[in-house]
Amino acid sequence: MKEIIECVPNFSTSDSEIVKAILDEVRGIEKAYLLDYTYDDYYSRLVVSYVGNRDSVLSAAINTAKKAIELINMNKHEGQHPRIGAVDVVPFIPIRNVEIEDCVELARKFGRTLTEECGVPIYLYGEAATKPERNDLDWVRRGEYEKLEEMMKKPERKPDFGSGSPHPTAGATITGARQVMVGFNVNLGTSNMEIARKIAKAMHAKKGGLAYVKAMATEIPNKNMTQIGMSITSFEKTPLHRVFELIRIEANRYNVPIVSSEFCGLAPLKTITDAAQHYLKIDNLTEDRVLEIAIQRATEKG
Amino acid sequence: MKEIIECVPNFSTSDSEIVKAILDEVRGIEKAYLLDYTYDDYYSRLVVSYVGNRDSVLSAAINTAKKAIELINMNKHEGQHPRIGAVDVVPFIPIRNVEIEDCVELARKFGRTLTEECGVPIYLYGEAATKPERNDLDWVRRGEYEKLEEMMKKPERKPDFGSGSPHPTAGATITGARQVMVGFNVNLGTSNMEIARKIAKAMHAKKGGLAYVKAMATEIPNKNMTQIGMSITSFEKTPLHRVFELIRIEANRYNVPIVSSEFCGLAPLKTITDAAQHYLKIDNLTEDRVLEIAIQRATEKG
Repeated sequence: MKEIIECVPNFSTSDSEIVKAILDEVRGIEKAYLLDYTYDDYYSRLVVSYVGNRDSVLSAAINTAKKAIELINMNKHEGQHPRIGAVDVVPFIPIRNVEIEDCVELARKFGRTLTEECGVPIYLYGEAATKPERNDLDWVRRGEYEKLEEMMKKPERKPDFGSGSPHPTAGATITGARQVMVGFNVNLGTSNMEIARKIAKAMHAKKGGLAYVKAMATEIPNKNMTQIGMSITSFEKTPLHRVFELIRIEANRYNVPIVSSEFCGLAPLKTITDAAQHYLKIDNLTEDRVLEIAIQRATEKG
Repeated sequence: MKEIIECVPNFSTSDSEIVKAILDEVRGIEKAYLLDYTYDDYYSRLVVSYVGNRDSVLSAAINTAKKAIELINMNKHEGQHPRIGAVDVVPFIPIRNVEIEDCVELARKFGRTLTEECGVPIYLYGEAATKPERNDLDWVRRGEYEKLEEMMKKPERKPDFGSGSPHPTAGATITGARQVMVGFNVNLGTSNMEIARKIAKAMHAKKGGLAYVKAMATEIPNKNMTQIGMSITSFEKTPLHRVFELIRIEANRYNVPIVSSEFCGLAPLKTITDAAQHYLKIDNLTEDRVLEIAIQRATEKG
């Protein structure tokens, strides 16, 4: 495959039938390849990952979004993750033989189509943002779906495409382009949300935590656990071991153990080799010294 | 590539011109792909890794061996790693769409050719062994090159191919088939070989250490360090973190720190994901959840 683009759309649902219907739209597109999906009741959010070329990724993005807009009613939606729409956010990510500018163009095409064909207003974010503050997802999502109509009346929250009011059941959609990032969630052995919020705050970049980390606290019902849900936007610069060990230190303060952790979505190889390098004190572990990658690269050339 | 076999020959040299001549023989074979090579003065040993199909791997094995036999004189060789020949050991390893039996057949073909065309006696080991004790490299190497002539006179050390006496400058060669294994070396912050030997012994399976681990102590000149050099024959069953943490515990006993570690040769992905899973307490990290691998597998199908 010459060019590879990844798309990681987030939908506001944890209904298994709606999940299936959305995934089937990816499976129905030739040369689009479903890589992964995860959804949880407590987030009530579906995160899908697929790859393809420009055409197949755009088609899959449009078809999945249309299906989600058809089936999800935001007026009935509850979940702990901030969101403003049924198709909450759709990032396009350059993987191989494409530039970030190509992904910006895809995001604009996707957004325009969604506005024209479904009447959903669109915000562009990340590298596709038209104003500096829109770079930041949190800024665009302020007020969430519940206050979306009110927020959209403010001049600074005018959408990039579409009218100044939300779609009646699907709200609004954010789309854009970004580099690969990591979703990493750490589960704490406490149900005390106050402690979890303090730890999330300690990790969050803008609140004094680690650069390139966004962190939020979530309740995990029926397990007596809370979760620090994180996005790490530059895992090369802020590696996982630093995130994990700093959470451990902050949690020790409250006598709270780390029970487990998980990737939300796929794990870039470098996050794994960096963790192994740190904990096993390895000097010479680059990605191309991983057997499977070395074989792939060597035989592709030949 | 339909079938993939890996070959990891070990040659008794650290002379950079001989190293280059041997590597050039791999590069000269169509559809043989050089993945990696390492050599050190203190081991005086070159470990090469390449992949290919049955024909290309066999041709590369024969050509590199002939070059090494031509250029290496074992009567002048010194090094800390046990060895019995210029071409010390040549394992064939099934990677994709081949069985271990195919690799046994390759080893036998390779061995027979080396005996017939170069007069080097051959021992078959691993899955190709003709007697249970020959499964074990250590057993076959007992006495090393220096006592090879004497050892070969013993009925139980009669080679599988060739006469009962060593090649005058190249000694004997061991070849066979095995599964992927890991070379992992841990550097200790002490130059005291007595301590290093005690730690190596504590790790070595047959001496009461961890199953599937072979360990030896080595001096690293000019760095005030010693090294625990290990082969881990089943890294699925005895993962790296267990090896590393046990060395740490044994070394603590002597107030010796672990300075660093390194892979000798390539690192199978599972060694890395297992280490990340352990230290970061990750619940859901399988190899197919690594982004690069997921993309490779998904797009290969399509």
